[in-house]
Amino acid sequence: MACFTRSMAFCRSGSQPWRISYRHLSSSPTNKPCIGIRREESSVWERRAPLAPHHVRTLTRDGFQVVIQPSTRRAYSMFEYIDAGAELSEDLSVADVILGVKAMPVECLEMLSNKTVAFFSHTIKAQESSMPLLDGCIEKNVRILDYEKILAESGQRIVAFGHFAGTAGMINILHGVGLRLLALGFHTPLMHIGGAHNYSSTSAAKAAIANVGREIQYGLMPKSMHPLTFVFSGNGNVSRGAQEVFKQLPVQWIQPKDLEAVAKSGDNRRFYGCIVDRFDHLYRTEGGGYNDEEFLEFPERYSSNFVEKVAPHMSVLMNGIYWTPAHARLLTKQNIYPLLQKRGPVHHGLGGMPSRLLAIGDISCDLGGSIEFITRSTTLDNMFEIYDAESDNYTTDFSSDGILYMSIDNLPAQLPREATDFFGDQLLAFVPELARADWSKSLDDVQISSSLKDAMITYDKSLTPGYKYIDDLRAAQD
Amino acid sequence: MACFTRSMAFCRSGSQPWRISYRHLSSSPTNKPCIGIRREESSVWERRAPLAPHHVRTLTRDGFQVVIQPSTRRAYSMFEYIDAGAELSEDLSVADVILGVKAMPVECLEMLSNKTVAFFSHTIKAQESSMPLLDGCIEKNVRILDYEKILAESGQRIVAFGHFAGTAGMINILHGVGLRLLALGFHTPLMHIGGAHNYSSTSAAKAAIANVGREIQYGLMPKSMHPLTFVFSGNGNVSRGAQEVFKQLPVQWIQPKDLEAVAKSGDNRRFYGCIVDRFDHLYRTEGGGYNDEEFLEFPERYSSNFVEKVAPHMSVLMNGIYWTPAHARLLTKQNIYPLLQKRGPVHHGLGGMPSRLLAIGDISCDLGGSIEFITRSTTLDNMFEIYDAESDNYTTDFSSDGILYMSIDNLPAQLPREATDFFGDQLLAFVPELARADWSKSLDDVQISSSLKDAMITYDKSLTPGYKYIDDLRAAQD
Repeated sequence: MACFTRSMAFCRSGSQPWRISYRHLSSSPTNKPCIGIRREESSVWERRAPLAPHHVRTLTRDGFQVVIQPSTRRAYSMFEYIDAGAELSEDLSVADVILGVKAMPVECLEMLSNKTVAFFSHTIKAQESSMPLLDGCIEKNVRILDYEKILAESGQRIVAFGHFAGTAGMINILHGVGLRLLALGFHTPLMHIGGAHNYSSTSAAKAAIANVGREIQYGLMPKSMHPLTFVFSGNGNVSRGAQEVFKQLPVQWIQPKDLEAVAKSGDNRRFYGCIVDRFDHLYRTEGGGYNDEEFLEFPERYSSNFVEKVAPHMSVLMNGIYWTPAHARLLTKQNIYPLLQKRGPVHHGLGGMPSRLLAIGDISCDLGGSIEFITRSTTLDNMFEIYDAESDNYTTDFSSDGILYMSIDNLPAQLPREATDFFGDQLLAFVPELARADWSKSLDDVQISSSLKDAMITYDKSLTPGYKYIDDLRAAQD
Repeated sequence: MACFTRSMAFCRSGSQPWRISYRHLSSSPTNKPCIGIRREESSVWERRAPLAPHHVRTLTRDGFQVVIQPSTRRAYSMFEYIDAGAELSEDLSVADVILGVKAMPVECLEMLSNKTVAFFSHTIKAQESSMPLLDGCIEKNVRILDYEKILAESGQRIVAFGHFAGTAGMINILHGVGLRLLALGFHTPLMHIGGAHNYSSTSAAKAAIANVGREIQYGLMPKSMHPLTFVFSGNGNVSRGAQEVFKQLPVQWIQPKDLEAVAKSGDNRRFYGCIVDRFDHLYRTEGGGYNDEEFLEFPERYSSNFVEKVAPHMSVLMNGIYWTPAHARLLTKQNIYPLLQKRGPVHHGLGGMPSRLLAIGDISCDLGGSIEFITRSTTLDNMFEIYDAESDNYTTDFSSDGILYMSIDNLPAQLPREATDFFGDQLLAFVPELARADWSKSLDDVQISSSLKDAMITYDKSLTPGYKYIDDLRAAQD
């Protein structure tokens, strides 16, 4: 990976529009605090940026300099940033703070040395694949500011894409269920929903889904198919993003206790939606009622009856819960097989539903976690797989026996403009102090708000006190 | 494959909506001429029917009986046919003529014996894969009426889906080019176009494409990419279906002679469209001007300069020409490699276009024909492949070197409702005479119009005189 060190100016017209001419940005320094925006390189799908052009407009108007690396991959074009007052430059050395979305290749750390760089580092659980980057940052004195750890007093994340993971995930799963039903012999209105990235905006997707809703209401779901029930586990940002899309369909919301009845004799001119919150399925293993405060502190004291109460009656599970190894699973590997038993024989020409349970959209994407069999991610290039619990096999053949699942860890990249707007709206408030801070001071003395300080993973060539535990986790892994 | 012989009545309500109850249709015969409609079983994607419910309504009102096999796969539901006056029956023995779209499994011929059955038989070029079906039809005295051979005086096909192949093919290729450009490092508005089957109608697809057109017009195609030129080879039903979709974008139509200039210095706030007709690229090998009548009779006398005049300047080729081995190819295998030479180096962050030629949408789908390298079909499950001319390899990895192509032989199945409407509109005029004909008479004496008679491939347990040549073709194959 070549890391350019010279800045560029873009030649907008002429017969060779792809020609770039170079100039030295550093030859015309300003006294303005300067924000750099990195080019994302983690995936061809990564079209997000930490700030949108309208955020840049606010910053440049307020006296900041903004320098952005060229990229034809961003959903907002370079020219939109330039029009908003940004300068295009491969070299970001002039910047006081550098913003990105995803992690950068280790080879690029050289040009970031002695800089404060904000991104999702995926280092705080000592994730093995991120350790070379962490070591590189410490070596090159790159100060990592991890968005994931910018928290409000309540412990809630302030700067996050979660809502769009739910939005994109829900659009995708409706698309996937349409394809799965087709493979099982059913043409349904769900065929008229594409993947989330096929829509220019959430509203365009919602409009298409609302149309599908009218087809469902008109009675176009095959009568020989049982009614579809959608279970939403969790009720946070992710789940609410998914619910908002789902609401475009003719939905009847029901309580978990009513799932069994509608699954048996519901109306298939509507879909059934059911939110399953913690108190709906968790219980104290040693007896006593559910207590949310206790559960949050001692999750290991609680068991789940999701598999008995909810799972047998659901067609689709949208999983949006937070999970750690101390938490009970929603579905173990052993739980899946009985849910996928074949139903009675079906008549010729009348599509065969192998089981009620059709699909799991695992938005949380905690591999091997709350849904134990989902041990690997699917990707935006291949969004779905079928898991056959009998043979313990994974396949991309939609007509295979098993359950369709989706477990994509970069869903918001499917709606990159809106995700960028949304994220930048949250991030913008923190940018001025980051750009004005004197990073030569010690972490204690640097003038930034405490929620930012608490999100600094590395500083002065070492882990900050709050993240020293990463070393312990790594030692334990060896 | 079980072929049911008992008729069914569908139980519309109750707690088990997928339950079917049986009754004998034959116990209540009518004196009405009767039309049977088969269930399609060639692919999970085959959601078309030869007639739509509104055609059935016309027929039942005019005194015909219509019997339709149950299927949850048709884009029009069973209940829409029943509401139009059709009876649902697995057994079609009561029918005087049976209509389908695609060929049936050989195992089903037993129940069709001594019947006249209309469908696309794919037997008239002695296609190897269709010969067991042809033999079976002769043995069981199934009279094949092949839609492909119902011709007007002019030789034009009367009953065809071609238009929708062009429509669906164009939507797909815009979708595919978006994905290919993404893999090459360019986010473009084309990402907001799905596959044709993701739209409930052509107008829904066109509306989405028109929106993308506005984004292109606004300047959102990357400036570092050269302008895109779309070449349409042929100007028949297929090509015009494709052009109609393409016209939703901001298109400037140009002559083949202007391709080179716009490819070099055109504006990428629009796309360039260029129709290449026969007279544009074919010339008499032995000298003299182009003569269409002579070409149609003696295609072997003509060569093509498509590869020199057109191919170097096109980004996308939509191929809609008719081809036989007597015709010059548009592109041989050897022609492709020079068209895929890498262009000069591109700067970091500014996506790389390996060559001007990006994609071929082969709607004609004559494998190994006018586009020699396309020797295998792609499918609705996997619409695109990349062909690397250097290594002569085919791959589904979008970031590979090479050219994207699509070559799907059942494109109209992506827009099944409209395709059914359109096809039935053409077929309806022929249905009454087919239902009233006395098939016990000889082919000479049966009272059907000559265009139908000429489309009968088999009759009285043998090939009809016009199709005896199939035996010769088969003998030559051995």
